[in-house]
Amino acid sequence: MNGAESLVHTLIACGIDTVFANPGTSEMHFVAALDRIPGINCVLCLDETVASGAADMYWRTKGRPAATLLHCGPGLANALANLHNARRGRSGIVNIVGDQATYHRPLDAPLTADTEGWARPVSGWVRTAMTADAVGHDAAEAVAAARTGTIATLILPADTAWTEGGVIGTPQPVPPRPTADASAIDAAAEVLRSGEPALLLLGGRTLTDATLRIATAIVQTTGAKMLAEMFNARMERGQGRPPIERIPYQIDAAVHSLEGIRHLILVEAKPPVGFFAYPGKKGRLWPDDCTVHTLADIGQDGVAALQALAERIGAGTPEIAVTPRPAPAKEAIAPETVATSIAALLPDDSVVIDEGISFGRGFSRFTHGAAPHLWLQVPGGAIGGGLPGAVGAAIGSGRRVLAIQADGSAMYSITALWTMARCNLDVTVVILANRKYAILLHEYANVGANPGRTAMDMLDLGHPDIDFVRLAEGMGVAAAQAGSMEKLNELMAASFERKGPFLIELLT
Amino acid sequence: MNGAESLVHTLIACGIDTVFANPGTSEMHFVAALDRIPGINCVLCLDETVASGAADMYWRTKGRPAATLLHCGPGLANALANLHNARRGRSGIVNIVGDQATYHRPLDAPLTADTEGWARPVSGWVRTAMTADAVGHDAAEAVAAARTGTIATLILPADTAWTEGGVIGTPQPVPPRPTADASAIDAAAEVLRSGEPALLLLGGRTLTDATLRIATAIVQTTGAKMLAEMFNARMERGQGRPPIERIPYQIDAAVHSLEGIRHLILVEAKPPVGFFAYPGKKGRLWPDDCTVHTLADIGQDGVAALQALAERIGAGTPEIAVTPRPAPAKEAIAPETVATSIAALLPDDSVVIDEGISFGRGFSRFTHGAAPHLWLQVPGGAIGGGLPGAVGAAIGSGRRVLAIQADGSAMYSITALWTMARCNLDVTVVILANRKYAILLHEYANVGANPGRTAMDMLDLGHPDIDFVRLAEGMGVAAAQAGSMEKLNELMAASFERKGPFLIELLT
Repeated sequence: MNGAESLVHTLIACGIDTVFANPGTSEMHFVAALDRIPGINCVLCLDETVASGAADMYWRTKGRPAATLLHCGPGLANALANLHNARRGRSGIVNIVGDQATYHRPLDAPLTADTEGWARPVSGWVRTAMTADAVGHDAAEAVAAARTGTIATLILPADTAWTEGGVIGTPQPVPPRPTADASAIDAAAEVLRSGEPALLLLGGRTLTDATLRIATAIVQTTGAKMLAEMFNARMERGQGRPPIERIPYQIDAAVHSLEGIRHLILVEAKPPVGFFAYPGKKGRLWPDDCTVHTLADIGQDGVAALQALAERIGAGTPEIAVTPRPAPAKEAIAPETVATSIAALLPDDSVVIDEGISFGRGFSRFTHGAAPHLWLQVPGGAIGGGLPGAVGAAIGSGRRVLAIQADGSAMYSITALWTMARCNLDVTVVILANRKYAILLHEYANVGANPGRTAMDMLDLGHPDIDFVRLAEGMGVAAAQAGSMEKLNELMAASFERKGPFLIELLT
Repeated sequence: MNGAESLVHTLIACGIDTVFANPGTSEMHFVAALDRIPGINCVLCLDETVASGAADMYWRTKGRPAATLLHCGPGLANALANLHNARRGRSGIVNIVGDQATYHRPLDAPLTADTEGWARPVSGWVRTAMTADAVGHDAAEAVAAARTGTIATLILPADTAWTEGGVIGTPQPVPPRPTADASAIDAAAEVLRSGEPALLLLGGRTLTDATLRIATAIVQTTGAKMLAEMFNARMERGQGRPPIERIPYQIDAAVHSLEGIRHLILVEAKPPVGFFAYPGKKGRLWPDDCTVHTLADIGQDGVAALQALAERIGAGTPEIAVTPRPAPAKEAIAPETVATSIAALLPDDSVVIDEGISFGRGFSRFTHGAAPHLWLQVPGGAIGGGLPGAVGAAIGSGRRVLAIQADGSAMYSITALWTMARCNLDVTVVILANRKYAILLHEYANVGANPGRTAMDMLDLGHPDIDFVRLAEGMGVAAAQAGSMEKLNELMAASFERKGPFLIELLT
């Protein structure tokens, strides 16, 4: 058994069943081992940003890590933007990077790069396997680390893969998440009893139906408010589930959302800050006279903390208002109408990937009446997470995926469409084609100038228009254009009924 | 004048005339300054790998750096693979990365990342501007560094761009390259006079018509051999120019190419090593009894060193055999016939971008009889340099560009086609569509196994076939498929006559 074989056996023993792969020469022994040893579904991605983005949303839908298979430092580099998103969303990924043989690295061959150096800023765990007999143990540690919700980067020099002497690693226990301090629960209870304006800010794993019911009971009992973070890895939403709004992206609206709050209680959430700084505007979003309390820190068990807090304050049974399911909208194409049609048509228990950027930003509040669904955002703000994420979510969930996708950001990872076609994934992609970087035109207006020709050359996506139907068909995905809400409704409903991927280019 | 305006004025004063841009919110003041101050051609790229790949080959064709405009750490991350290639090719790039405001960075907003940490492995110069009045000076230093042939990464926090008090930086002198040691010239002359088998290994800036004539004179006078490195940033080639072969990529052929050599004389070249390690095969390519001499180190002036060496040994006028221009090939599609047709049809003074990977690997030796041209490879081996490079080469050279592009690697940066269309660049793209990762299938065979279903799932690009004609048309590039040499010849000749880009999908 060589190192690569010990790696595959270890991954299987540790519960890894999926590898999102973009292999190269230095990974051929790993590929051969995956071929010889059944048990892992290998999904080819045409570039590495698809592999890492897919692994991110596989975790968020499956709750278990997938592995990647990347090629040397530059292959890792291509994956970093979506690994950044995964890190911000606290996804677990076993990030496997093949590399030069240990004895070849000092020769500085062309592809040699600082693989560890590039990995470290996104990884909670990094190791380069140095001998074949260490690979299995290293892989078991990597999986254990990934299962806590971090990126575990295992660098696999080619000789550690091909050398005999591999030893299968023993699956390691995953420690439970630490519980919140009792004093934090006391403090939050005291704040809520004080009657001063308070807000629960929820993030991390608290945005589930069950936990939102607890949080809703708390706020209904105490008169506090609740919000979710600006970007969230995973929200259980839809009809019958407790609706929750998010801190808005736009800086003035974000500040406004916390106005008058005297106590901000964080539950697996970070102190809320502006996505960017703006001249003369606040960076920290909470009022100056507001005290920030932490009920449960990022790594702690916020669900248990909320449960304890609810008991402490004697919260009752929450009343969950049921938002009616709307009919598909037939008016002009606009954010509200598109969101309304999504709410009307979305199948039960589906997964929505939201990289709608500017046009899609307000979809959330029009979709509380949709059938129950998961809503996944791009929590790190690195563009291009949507389409790769749809690949991973479709494989991870086995459910229908709706990818709400801005046109500009679609182009950072458009080759994800090919993997959707190859694996015949049930993904409906709705491209919001406004043919510009609308978010940047809005920001440019804030700078206080009308864009001239040079600026427009950098903000406008026309000249030529991108034809997403042709792009999709070029990668084997059936597609059609919608220029009206009627057409969008018809195409979306039909796509939800068929097997496999379908792309709708919506002219907004 | 704010910091962004001082940056634009400084770039213009220092001779920067082109920015390959993929902006975001934190760069809006820089975009506004580029808009207000005329003098820089801003080229929008749909993702950052296109921007960095274009800047790389702009340098190689123009001999001056272009700037990039990237967005925060994740935007830089997307650019790293082609920056790796640029580093290996010793290209000069002023790599400008907008980032969070200095006072916002500690708040750890979602897009905040280790921008400096990711930049450092590819950059010869890295600096984060910390105040508006420093930006101009920092930019002048960045340009000076880039002009020596390195990547100079200037990180521009948003507040240093928008704050008033900018000061235009003074262009700084670029030091001449250091000359080689006199003792190195003495030693090389002695070796060549000894009559023992010797080989000049040429790299860097020595692969020009003029310098190859000097090298040819030396080897014709002394009986030594000469070769170019395996991958080269820039080779002047074609009819009437001294032909030179390269060290082959394939490991056994590479070792064979240096067999029997007793003295290896490096001229702006590194000691040659295998691109990868293989079990039981050599990493260092030269024979064990061969002595390695350095005539001119990587950073030294190899051209002057060769001139001095030629004088020292009394080299005469070289005889340059003129390879006849072939007729277009009409036989079956094969590497030789495709290369022969390229040699027949290539316009005078054009630029060839070679990311032909496996099918295109042998094109070099069939194209010595082509009209004089520049031949640019992907020297770092990071996949996806070809199409972005074609953008940069077309803008840098103002000449016809032929991009010889493998299909698998095309998909890492396919959005470069859109920029070709937007700028109406004279680029002919020939996609070598074998619909597989042929290089990896070959490597897999070396592992000693027939690929099973799982391996083929990671090595085969069919299911579905990628339709490059549709992809090109989807991004505004006219395109056609060629299934015969006659059709290839017809399409290639026609593309060379028309303005703007054209893509040919060659079914190999």
